[in-house]
Amino acid sequence: MRVIGRPVVRLDALDKVTGAAKYVGDMKFPGVLHAAILRSNCSHGRIKHIDTKDALELPGVHAVVTGEKYQKPTGLYLKDRTLFAVDKVRYYGEPVAGVVAETPELAKEAVRLIRVEYEQLPPVYDPLSALADGAPLLHENLGNYEWAPVFFPKPGTNISNHFKLRKGDVKQGFAESHIIHEETYCVPHIYHSPLETHVAVGYADNGGRLTVWSSCQSPFAVRKFLSTALDIPLSKIRVITGYVGGGFGGKAGATIEGLVAPLALAVPGRHVKLVYTREEDFVGAYVRQGLVARLKTGVGKDGRIRAQQCELYWDAGAYTEYGANIVRAAGYTSAGPYDIPNLWTDSYCVYTNHPSGGPMRGFGMPELHWALELQMDTLADKLGMDPVEFRLLNCLKDGGVTATGEVVYGVGLTECIKTVAERIGWGDKKEGVGKGIAIMCKAPAMPTNASSSACLKFNEDGSVTLMTSAAEIGQGAMTALAQIAAEELSLPIEAISVSCPDTAITPYEWQTVASRITFSAGNAVVLAAQDAKRQIFQNASYILGDHEMELVDGQVRVKGRPDLSVPLESVVMGAFLPDGSAKGGPVFGRGTFTPEGLINLDPETGQSPRPVAFWTFGAQGAEVSADPETGKITVHRLVAAFDVGRVINPVTLEGQVEGGLVQGLGSALFEEMVFGEDGQVLNNSFVDYKIPTSMDVPAIETYFVEVAQQDGPWGARGVGELPMVPTAPAIACALKRATGTLHRKLPLVRHGRD
Amino acid sequence: MRVIGRPVVRLDALDKVTGAAKYVGDMKFPGVLHAAILRSNCSHGRIKHIDTKDALELPGVHAVVTGEKYQKPTGLYLKDRTLFAVDKVRYYGEPVAGVVAETPELAKEAVRLIRVEYEQLPPVYDPLSALADGAPLLHENLGNYEWAPVFFPKPGTNISNHFKLRKGDVKQGFAESHIIHEETYCVPHIYHSPLETHVAVGYADNGGRLTVWSSCQSPFAVRKFLSTALDIPLSKIRVITGYVGGGFGGKAGATIEGLVAPLALAVPGRHVKLVYTREEDFVGAYVRQGLVARLKTGVGKDGRIRAQQCELYWDAGAYTEYGANIVRAAGYTSAGPYDIPNLWTDSYCVYTNHPSGGPMRGFGMPELHWALELQMDTLADKLGMDPVEFRLLNCLKDGGVTATGEVVYGVGLTECIKTVAERIGWGDKKEGVGKGIAIMCKAPAMPTNASSSACLKFNEDGSVTLMTSAAEIGQGAMTALAQIAAEELSLPIEAISVSCPDTAITPYEWQTVASRITFSAGNAVVLAAQDAKRQIFQNASYILGDHEMELVDGQVRVKGRPDLSVPLESVVMGAFLPDGSAKGGPVFGRGTFTPEGLINLDPETGQSPRPVAFWTFGAQGAEVSADPETGKITVHRLVAAFDVGRVINPVTLEGQVEGGLVQGLGSALFEEMVFGEDGQVLNNSFVDYKIPTSMDVPAIETYFVEVAQQDGPWGARGVGELPMVPTAPAIACALKRATGTLHRKLPLVRHGRD
Repeated sequence: MRVIGRPVVRLDALDKVTGAAKYVGDMKFPGVLHAAILRSNCSHGRIKHIDTKDALELPGVHAVVTGEKYQKPTGLYLKDRTLFAVDKVRYYGEPVAGVVAETPELAKEAVRLIRVEYEQLPPVYDPLSALADGAPLLHENLGNYEWAPVFFPKPGTNISNHFKLRKGDVKQGFAESHIIHEETYCVPHIYHSPLETHVAVGYADNGGRLTVWSSCQSPFAVRKFLSTALDIPLSKIRVITGYVGGGFGGKAGATIEGLVAPLALAVPGRHVKLVYTREEDFVGAYVRQGLVARLKTGVGKDGRIRAQQCELYWDAGAYTEYGANIVRAAGYTSAGPYDIPNLWTDSYCVYTNHPSGGPMRGFGMPELHWALELQMDTLADKLGMDPVEFRLLNCLKDGGVTATGEVVYGVGLTECIKTVAERIGWGDKKEGVGKGIAIMCKAPAMPTNASSSACLKFNEDGSVTLMTSAAEIGQGAMTALAQIAAEELSLPIEAISVSCPDTAITPYEWQTVASRITFSAGNAVVLAAQDAKRQIFQNASYILGDHEMELVDGQVRVKGRPDLSVPLESVVMGAFLPDGSAKGGPVFGRGTFTPEGLINLDPETGQSPRPVAFWTFGAQGAEVSADPETGKITVHRLVAAFDVGRVINPVTLEGQVEGGLVQGLGSALFEEMVFGEDGQVLNNSFVDYKIPTSMDVPAIETYFVEVAQQDGPWGARGVGELPMVPTAPAIACALKRATGTLHRKLPLVRHGRD
Repeated sequence: MRVIGRPVVRLDALDKVTGAAKYVGDMKFPGVLHAAILRSNCSHGRIKHIDTKDALELPGVHAVVTGEKYQKPTGLYLKDRTLFAVDKVRYYGEPVAGVVAETPELAKEAVRLIRVEYEQLPPVYDPLSALADGAPLLHENLGNYEWAPVFFPKPGTNISNHFKLRKGDVKQGFAESHIIHEETYCVPHIYHSPLETHVAVGYADNGGRLTVWSSCQSPFAVRKFLSTALDIPLSKIRVITGYVGGGFGGKAGATIEGLVAPLALAVPGRHVKLVYTREEDFVGAYVRQGLVARLKTGVGKDGRIRAQQCELYWDAGAYTEYGANIVRAAGYTSAGPYDIPNLWTDSYCVYTNHPSGGPMRGFGMPELHWALELQMDTLADKLGMDPVEFRLLNCLKDGGVTATGEVVYGVGLTECIKTVAERIGWGDKKEGVGKGIAIMCKAPAMPTNASSSACLKFNEDGSVTLMTSAAEIGQGAMTALAQIAAEELSLPIEAISVSCPDTAITPYEWQTVASRITFSAGNAVVLAAQDAKRQIFQNASYILGDHEMELVDGQVRVKGRPDLSVPLESVVMGAFLPDGSAKGGPVFGRGTFTPEGLINLDPETGQSPRPVAFWTFGAQGAEVSADPETGKITVHRLVAAFDVGRVINPVTLEGQVEGGLVQGLGSALFEEMVFGEDGQVLNNSFVDYKIPTSMDVPAIETYFVEVAQQDGPWGARGVGELPMVPTAPAIACALKRATGTLHRKLPLVRHGRD
């Protein structure tokens, strides 16, 4: 292969190192106005009165918007929220009003002048309390909300989704078990920590059209959300995304856009810019949900897992958005990368007076695997079995069966485990140093109809513009997709330019989430290239005659006849014959990809023979020591191996995995959102919320297994989120072996708080 | 039909009346710098020295660019020019240097500080003098230039193209003639007079990419020109066009963009804006070429034209660009709308020290028909034949043969002539009022491979974005193309949005010129819609089964089975089956159109059985009187009839024809660029260069004949330029009948200058 598998330099590298890359915050708009948001200082309360008079009278203030004008319930999967709070607030930091003013300072000053009177309501801050009898209800009208039919809210409770999985006979499985282990594991809320906070600019013109520039992962989802929430046709809304300064799920769906759009509509003809402060960013979009997981697992004398019962209580915050689907994904993945014949899972999405839970790199998998992998490691210990052997014995292999009853093929997990064990020197003992291993699996959690499109527009010189709406959020999508296009078209990478998403122009893409872009948009690129090649070959046939053709190194040639060829650039605009006549025309390839045959889970049993597009598997090892005097934990090494199907770009892939490992390291060691008694985030800055610095990063080794994904582009499957999944359990297991203590609550460094 | 033929409101109407429409001059760029151009004050001279020191030292000046850095010869069809003058200047107003400064005023001040020393060379200002022995040569190196093979420059002379047409036996034809009339006709240079002068903004980034925003008709031609002239790959150049405030040919090709681009490259990372003043606009792009035409025509006793000899001497100015092709187009159209068996034509593109000649609405046809129609009217008089009868007898009809030997079909010219004669009351006499008629034909003069593309991108609600690179220059292209898309897709016009051209994004379009957009881009839209429909039907077939389908009123249904249908919006993103599985994907149609089978003209005889994509025919009548005391000419009525094949939008079409008639009226009565002895344009403002005001506009009636163009979209052919073609001769012929005098030199109001 010429381009795939090569360490091509990122297409956005030069832009980014020279500062030429335009992020939304860099875009300049003439006469731009600035917005600020008044956020609730009460985590659960009824709004008695909002007085905006003083704010409106402040010179330089153009508009103040409250929930009064936008009462329509909205939401991604379950319509449980409004753009600004209406009647009630449900978390500390919920948007109550927005101001548009000449300067950011004036907007903030005006926000301070808005007076809101609340009737305090009793708050609830953990999912178990929220499920108790007599717990305060967050959404009294839950039963009147609309929701997508694959979710199961329980009106009259705080449950926005109850996912059930019933497989085999758990009772029988436990009866056959030699050892049964039952334990509870806890994961706190954490924050995405993108370099760039949320930024959006809105502009409403006199023709009733709305344009939003947003640092977002899902411009088409934003457009659809705004269309529904604001009752504006899709064709009159345009969402433009430049480079995105880190997403990690926090910029999925629509968040800041739902605030800036109504503010822009209040001042038509003027641009309105809203930039979240770091403090605001902690609660302004989503946080990673908290989890209390109760696992009961039984193994036979042979070491084989017989049964598992799993209760997942998600602290999903005030509104659910993606939360309901995270709960579902964790539910149908609740066997993890293991072949478990008997399963009983209940996964509950529970409203609390915390900020809204949402997607963060891994979409529930890091939380689930925290519980699962500590549980398995403990079972191995109890069995007296080597934890690597235990995992090799029980893990999914080719032809294995997942929690939903799906038979999986092309599974390179065993090789991943062996690679990690070998590279971390599993058998070698070092004094005071513990080694741990954790394994994982993940599938993209998306609707069965989530699709991608791509266009390939040829220039007169044979170079190509690739248009997709995949957002370049730092993950390298732009480069990977360009490599796929270059490979398919037998062109050098330099011949491919890639455009940024713009819903008015670039073709439809569901969302840039779920580690699905290389797979899904990559497949669309392959199809677009095939469409382009058909046109190229058609044009060439007018000159070379009707033959089977191939495209090799910029030459279109009759298959097997290198002597019968024309240069690609001579036929990309049509075929031109000696008499001056033309045939065919400019080549423009289009491709669209939807995974075929995905079947919804059965609502009662959570079973489906094909609920997801693909599974990715991997393993990680950690080498950890702790100072017996100070307790200081040192992670010495992290070793990772993933079965990516096919490496598209070894350098960007390695970078992506290293980033994930470091983010996983942060979540293992330090990261936790700390809430005050009033529900306020107390550590909402990087002074108090610690993420890893370069000094915290251990030696990292990454390995890739390549068991092809048959329906992936050149065999590739997604991997972006995965490295974050097994890092924390691998470190915790290593720490257990170094110190003898297994910590079941994240993060491992507890700062003496409990 | 639902949408085609209906008076749909222009899609750009609301934008334009509310001021929301963005022209390039309206676009704001942060920290924009401003450019000004030093233009030659000498019409023919050798550049001895350019001193830019004082200009560069002026505080606030960022760069000064001269021809020194850009010596590569360039040009559209014949590479006879450079971006800035190198060694020689050849017209008064030629760009010699450019300045980039903080403000427009500073840039102009710096321009004044540049000192240029010229060695004066003898100028030549009319084509006949330029062809005389010993005439000063403008391009001594003509023989070393590159040119496209369909042009025939004569090195060692001032001829940049000599087009020859030889058909039948002219000698024999004249021998058979009863009356032979020989006469000379003159047409002066005129100016396009767009509301918006040329404006362009350039931006070079640190990644070696160049973006140009330009008020232009041909963004892809601009991109190609800049790529060649500046040695930058096509993929690194982006040309963006907003709304264009009038083109009329003056914004075809690349003019201002070739100045702003090198200036932007001199200050990477900063936007550079160049706005032509009205004075500068008169010479900054193209002017309509002057013409001296000698016609010799013979008719038989039966009134039939037997032979014509035609010498066309075009005053093409200093550089040729489109000029060489105008000369060619006029040459192959030199029989006009008449069936003339024996023809001998020489059309010469002659360099003079006037500003560069280029395309203007009609592309040589108004000039040619000025000569041709006065000649025919005179012949009718000499024969004692009614001029309408004479034209009805001799004009092209179905199966007639053009000057190049092409047999034409679907010709509604006879009906056009009869309509005009009837509506103007040809037989009715009015004291002191003369009536005149003129007829015409025109074909798009374009390379045989000029193509159009279109894309149709579906939104989730079934609405559609139409992407083409056809420029909306006021002619209504956006609306007409949207109507074609709506009709093909059986959607209301409100469901179609249209994007503006952007070479990085919108699909390839050769140029928005030659009255070809409705035909060529329209055909591409039809093909894109067919491609989209295939996908829609495919998606629907997963639900309705494999049947022949049709799209009616937003429903996809099995043909002939209205009961078996699904709503369009339910299948535009794919098909979704009851088990949750998906098939197909988002609909994205693409279409590309190149007229097939156009055959180059024979270089010696100018013959070809199919040299052009289509012919449009029409007729006009005028009613004119002149005050016998003051000589003041009053045009009372103009009546026009064109065979447009199919009316797409009666209101915008009528508007386009009325605009053309008024522009034709201006060229008939007042318009003429007056040059001083030094070659300077003396009347370069609307104080001195008169165009019609509303007070000058007579009663106008327009009629449309609809003999379908078989290969046109819904039968349509182009008409945009045509109304300007026969207006002046119709008025002159009417004036002749009112006063007894035929004026053979335009304009008719001579301001006592000769």
